[in-house]
Amino acid sequence: LREEKSVSKNVTVVILAGGQGTRFWPMSRVKKPKQFLSMLDTGHTLIQETVKRLKPLVSEENCVIVSSAEHYSLVKEQLPKVQIISEPRGRNTAPCIGLAALYLLRNNPESVMIALPADHVIKDEEKLVQAFRQGIEAASSRDVLVTLGVPPTHAHTGYGYIKKGEGTAGGLYRVASFHEKPTLENASKYIESGDFYWNSGMFIWRAEVILDAIEQHIPALHASLMRINEAIGSGSEQAVVKEEFEKITPVSIDFGVLEHADNCEVIPAEPFGWSDIGSWDAWAEYFVEKKANFIKGQALLIDSEGCIIHSEHRMTAVLGLNDLVVIDSGDATLVCKRERVQEVKKIVDELRRQEKENLL
Amino acid sequence: LREEKSVSKNVTVVILAGGQGTRFWPMSRVKKPKQFLSMLDTGHTLIQETVKRLKPLVSEENCVIVSSAEHYSLVKEQLPKVQIISEPRGRNTAPCIGLAALYLLRNNPESVMIALPADHVIKDEEKLVQAFRQGIEAASSRDVLVTLGVPPTHAHTGYGYIKKGEGTAGGLYRVASFHEKPTLENASKYIESGDFYWNSGMFIWRAEVILDAIEQHIPALHASLMRINEAIGSGSEQAVVKEEFEKITPVSIDFGVLEHADNCEVIPAEPFGWSDIGSWDAWAEYFVEKKANFIKGQALLIDSEGCIIHSEHRMTAVLGLNDLVVIDSGDATLVCKRERVQEVKKIVDELRRQEKENLL
Repeated sequence: LREEKSVSKNVTVVILAGGQGTRFWPMSRVKKPKQFLSMLDTGHTLIQETVKRLKPLVSEENCVIVSSAEHYSLVKEQLPKVQIISEPRGRNTAPCIGLAALYLLRNNPESVMIALPADHVIKDEEKLVQAFRQGIEAASSRDVLVTLGVPPTHAHTGYGYIKKGEGTAGGLYRVASFHEKPTLENASKYIESGDFYWNSGMFIWRAEVILDAIEQHIPALHASLMRINEAIGSGSEQAVVKEEFEKITPVSIDFGVLEHADNCEVIPAEPFGWSDIGSWDAWAEYFVEKKANFIKGQALLIDSEGCIIHSEHRMTAVLGLNDLVVIDSGDATLVCKRERVQEVKKIVDELRRQEKENLL
Repeated sequence: LREEKSVSKNVTVVILAGGQGTRFWPMSRVKKPKQFLSMLDTGHTLIQETVKRLKPLVSEENCVIVSSAEHYSLVKEQLPKVQIISEPRGRNTAPCIGLAALYLLRNNPESVMIALPADHVIKDEEKLVQAFRQGIEAASSRDVLVTLGVPPTHAHTGYGYIKKGEGTAGGLYRVASFHEKPTLENASKYIESGDFYWNSGMFIWRAEVILDAIEQHIPALHASLMRINEAIGSGSEQAVVKEEFEKITPVSIDFGVLEHADNCEVIPAEPFGWSDIGSWDAWAEYFVEKKANFIKGQALLIDSEGCIIHSEHRMTAVLGLNDLVVIDSGDATLVCKRERVQEVKKIVDELRRQEKENLL
């Protein structure tokens, strides 16, 4: 216990909350994306859930939320005690992880960072915490970039996969390779082999180690971060951050760093009921089994199977349609086939093109 | 002209406005069914349109609306000058036509009745009026029950058909037989033969002649009507009408009388762009060609063809669905396949079973 305490004091959780949640239109909106919504009827928003489930590791004060500047007051309102880093512009995950690492490193050279998205769902939170403890142990004692790997339950084509290599210390494995969202055929092969994990997008590393890796694999980003570093604490800090973020090329930490680094490891977590709740389909499957009707609000279904209905403002009646999704936000209604929920952002793109700002 | 004037003075238009319009849920509601709605963007409701298009034949004062007692003030508001007969209970068309005939006959033994539904659409109103003139001529001079036949344009399975027999006077034909809504195969045969018309549900006869036919073919109804006749003008008139309508067996004038009568004739009208606007599908086809997207209000369609969207209260976005119908009334949304719009009343039936009175 004493040892864990001493490790934990170095740990900061960095929550990446810059997403727009466009696949959850019309509920998720530019002004209030999905991570700030109470999507799961728990009485808490997704980002509040994320902070809450990590309390056994770190207090709210030791959480840093990296989010869009325009959501500052939303974060402040939902999580009054967290630290907030405002991105002047969304530049994907590598720049905001780098920026967070910079701040952490200035405070504590031994700083261990857990980086994770704001909008995931975990059913068995204790197992998650256990996996993070393994990761903290590894990242504290070795110069490694650790990804939390989720044992796959089926050939999901919406997730990235990690192939494990040889075992290292503490039950971890070296990463043999990262694989982007695969075809169904490839996903099935991955599952059969038993050597693959889903990439959870949850990482553990020391701030120093990830900054070194950024320097090696995205030197331009590192240079920007160094210019920001010089300005920190001065009157021009905000201006420099803004200026550099204008210039930075958007890139994910996976694509920009991890796929090139040779010090990546993976923790094969015990199954903890993970979902990235990446679509209305995944949202419904959180509540009911795959392909069952799921209704939130008022609905009447006649000859209709496998439908997802979110209708809290009025009655939605569906007649003779299977696998339909109807989401009514009050000022907009989405109707689409369940198999096409991944494309909902096309609607948002089109509304943006039509300059329908109030519907974005 | 003088002759027509003398004929016209006997003519009363009886508009059957007792329908519930359940296939137009959620727009059409128990408290305000489709005939009282401005469905066609003309600035008038369907029942107002019906009165208006017959103005070349009869004034508003010579129109009688037969409608449910609960819609009395709706009729009064929309058509202040018409006469109103309130049905205490909907009993299909034969009882209300009989009741109207009774009142007309008391006022004028030569009374000629044009009976027609309140919710049809006619594109060429002049041709309709011309057909009615033929019918008035025939019904004034012969003891016949005249139906206005519409030359069919395609093998519609939602209409009744009339087979013509030998020609009579004035361009009319005897009716060889009436045929209920046919199968597609039979409908196709009917069209090929050239001997069939759509049954428009628009009739011309003298009040005396239809009452005689009711006496012959539905004697129980005739007996009820005679009891009402005795009470007319007395203090018990309303009570007797109510009592008799409780007892009367519901039956249509087609099924109860016309199919059995041997004095039926049909006017083969010149095509006048008739539709009974019997479903959301027919409604859309009033505005655009069959199978085209039709949008009233705000909608965004992506990869979606042949959709009917009525969304005046919010944006409706449809992704990847063909032949979809979405109707948003404000307090309810209907989503169904275009090919199943005839079944919308199943939703109303189910809402009634669930006692959701405010949604009926």
